[in-house]
Amino acid sequence: MKKYILNQLGEIVNNNIVSFHVPGHKLGKIYDRLGYSNILENIYKMDTTEILGTDNLHSPDGIIKKSQERAARVFKSKNTYYLINGSTCGIQGAIMSVCNPKDKIIVNRDCHQSVINTFILGDIEPVYIYPQIDTKTNILMGIKIEDAINTINDNLDAKAILLTYPTYYGKVYDLKTICDYAHSKGMIVIVDEAHGAHLGLSNRLPMTALEQGADIVIQSTHKTLPSFTQSSMLHIQGERINQDRLTSILRMIESSSPSYMLMSSLELAVDIYEKKGEFLMEELLHNIDIFKNNINKNEHIKIYNDDDITKIFISSKELGITGYELDEMLRINYNIQVELSNYYGVLLICTIGNDRADFEALEYALEDISLNYKNDKSIDNIEYPMNIPVKELSPREAFYNEKKSVKIYDSIDKICGEYIIPYPPGICLVSPGEIITKEVIDYILVCNKKGMNISGIKDSKLEYIQIIENDHKE
Amino acid sequence: MKKYILNQLGEIVNNNIVSFHVPGHKLGKIYDRLGYSNILENIYKMDTTEILGTDNLHSPDGIIKKSQERAARVFKSKNTYYLINGSTCGIQGAIMSVCNPKDKIIVNRDCHQSVINTFILGDIEPVYIYPQIDTKTNILMGIKIEDAINTINDNLDAKAILLTYPTYYGKVYDLKTICDYAHSKGMIVIVDEAHGAHLGLSNRLPMTALEQGADIVIQSTHKTLPSFTQSSMLHIQGERINQDRLTSILRMIESSSPSYMLMSSLELAVDIYEKKGEFLMEELLHNIDIFKNNINKNEHIKIYNDDDITKIFISSKELGITGYELDEMLRINYNIQVELSNYYGVLLICTIGNDRADFEALEYALEDISLNYKNDKSIDNIEYPMNIPVKELSPREAFYNEKKSVKIYDSIDKICGEYIIPYPPGICLVSPGEIITKEVIDYILVCNKKGMNISGIKDSKLEYIQIIENDHKE
Repeated sequence: MKKYILNQLGEIVNNNIVSFHVPGHKLGKIYDRLGYSNILENIYKMDTTEILGTDNLHSPDGIIKKSQERAARVFKSKNTYYLINGSTCGIQGAIMSVCNPKDKIIVNRDCHQSVINTFILGDIEPVYIYPQIDTKTNILMGIKIEDAINTINDNLDAKAILLTYPTYYGKVYDLKTICDYAHSKGMIVIVDEAHGAHLGLSNRLPMTALEQGADIVIQSTHKTLPSFTQSSMLHIQGERINQDRLTSILRMIESSSPSYMLMSSLELAVDIYEKKGEFLMEELLHNIDIFKNNINKNEHIKIYNDDDITKIFISSKELGITGYELDEMLRINYNIQVELSNYYGVLLICTIGNDRADFEALEYALEDISLNYKNDKSIDNIEYPMNIPVKELSPREAFYNEKKSVKIYDSIDKICGEYIIPYPPGICLVSPGEIITKEVIDYILVCNKKGMNISGIKDSKLEYIQIIENDHKE
Repeated sequence: MKKYILNQLGEIVNNNIVSFHVPGHKLGKIYDRLGYSNILENIYKMDTTEILGTDNLHSPDGIIKKSQERAARVFKSKNTYYLINGSTCGIQGAIMSVCNPKDKIIVNRDCHQSVINTFILGDIEPVYIYPQIDTKTNILMGIKIEDAINTINDNLDAKAILLTYPTYYGKVYDLKTICDYAHSKGMIVIVDEAHGAHLGLSNRLPMTALEQGADIVIQSTHKTLPSFTQSSMLHIQGERINQDRLTSILRMIESSSPSYMLMSSLELAVDIYEKKGEFLMEELLHNIDIFKNNINKNEHIKIYNDDDITKIFISSKELGITGYELDEMLRINYNIQVELSNYYGVLLICTIGNDRADFEALEYALEDISLNYKNDKSIDNIEYPMNIPVKELSPREAFYNEKKSVKIYDSIDKICGEYIIPYPPGICLVSPGEIITKEVIDYILVCNKKGMNISGIKDSKLEYIQIIENDHKE
């Protein structure tokens, strides 16, 4: 009973949960199906380090170098770096290799938190582009091209533009136009393709960020391809990136004892991608087609599925329940794990690790739920606050400033000391260093009442909030 | 043949290498011996993430919280944090949670490179204490207590003192006196106990850093206990540490997709430590006693083994060969992997993962080598440069400054743009921002000729070196 983590994970394995969640290997199912089990049963014995015959991730000239070179060929980059601290360290490496302290960077506001954290570490000044949100589903739609162009024009001194592509929900936009325009103004384009490592596997999927001209691309291989959680890749192309600087930063932030288990799993993902990836993706897209076809016959179930069609958003409003309720029902009553839920529905991440049986289980569950639940509760829309708050301090200044707790309504017009992130959608409503507005406080208190998760704020009851102590506005 | 990493690791597993190297589980041997194989064969299926029933490393309130609480009881800390980016992120977290930008910290010069890297990230000003080195063996002996006391007295404005304890070679010193003195001056004590996670397992081993009063202790669990490479722990005790700040920094630098495989392996190490650790350590120390007893009969083999007696340094001088040669012979002719070699000998890291058979193999190899090799080559001592260089720029200033390559002798009296680290012993002779001296250049060129490894310098031939471009000394 003392093995808390191991016992619980053992139970999850034994339960054969149907996973529409990350990681992409779906609890090891794809490895077993493709005949890699004999390698993986011994993976713990392969946990070694830099000895004669192995290599050094931070200065590779042997097996890691060769493996990364193969990955570069397969993913069509100039150079590929295996990452062992997740896409987090890829984001850190990319930004800090391009921006010096006090440099400006343009970034979509719904960036991953690791991006803002890197601004703190690197003392970098963000300029935000607000994304579009579908207010019926809270689906993040990506940025408008004209907003990107205008922000570039208004900030020609910015060193780089960093964009999330595709969004968590699989939405894309014309990245190529932005890349071309940014390059014409001498800016570097960094793409957080955390949710799109699989895009190269089919013509039915959107183009990859590399194909559209990005200079640095970070992919969470573990999310949509079969590598282990916390293993990712960084790809570069072209001549704009100082690779010496990139290597120095990665060496600085990643463990000096990198895990060969994580690196091996990246190699395995490359192997599967190259040898069977397209075939498996075709099979997956076919399974998704059948699923959609079957489910569309049911008028109580509404699905959103375009752009990256491996992401499926199931609206729960038509069933008269919240996404949170649908999420819990699927897991508890039907042994199905979705990726995330918001107030309006649930998101599924389908990968080449899913098979037809997974979709059959889901079809059965949704049919069953739609039979048993009556649409007697109305799920109303909550107005999303779309204003970017005023910035008083840089992320780094705010981080290192002293903070104090105040009652939540007393924080209005003060400088925020923590993040306010309704999750999902996961956009930072207010960042440390920005001014808190009444609109934001009203919104998060309504959200909280409806059972939504507000992350970033230490007081989970939302009674108190941290503000900057030496607020010179006082 | 395209699985470069996996094929090579598979071969290492098949060869049953006798390991006196990290990780502490010794290619999985201890797990098999103690009956954990059935868990570990399935570990790849347990690679999951934050779903119903699991927990969130960065804000734990379930299985990870309970597992960490148990670790805290076992390692006698107030709080224990599982780390998934190695001790590197523990060092980063500890330093940046204690020091603000421009703060001063006292540190032993032979600190791990992650320490200096954190000074770059956090914009922190180091004050160095020079360690003692045994010039016959290059063994790092730790710092002198009086040097620590004097440095504290000379820098009463320093926020903290950070010490490596024990050294890589297992040497210790009176940490308690330093902790007490630092605390009396209001300084926090951070201990890099990367090489000492096992010290609590026997009275025959030195006292742990926590027992001697350290406030924060970082242990590479993977090095001397049976967890996977890249998994470590951070322990705190007392009331001096701002845990909110520590948690914020760890969340900022560690992957937001932490590996359950790494976390599981930490739990496994705690399980083994608590249930069988003392018994296994007694067995190990007994095996080391027998080994020393047998090997001491051989006049050609000289061993250094005190303080932490799980570390054994075998001098190669008496065999008329360098440590590099002995290292290679042991691996190629006898299938034995040592931890490291320097010019004068090899270091073994023995853990509870080693059994009597490992030591028998080593005894046989050493006897055999001593029979076959004649002492006809003299291994001369090379004078080690013991002067701390003059600092012109802080680590962060130096990192972000433009650099240029110059011929190595033209770099004398210039500000260094890279690290110069003869490895081993792994002490930074010159750090970025410090003035290069002729003594240092002469030394590294002799070292290079003798086959020693100089790390940090990009040009491995040592013809060119990077200096700061806008050197205001010019």
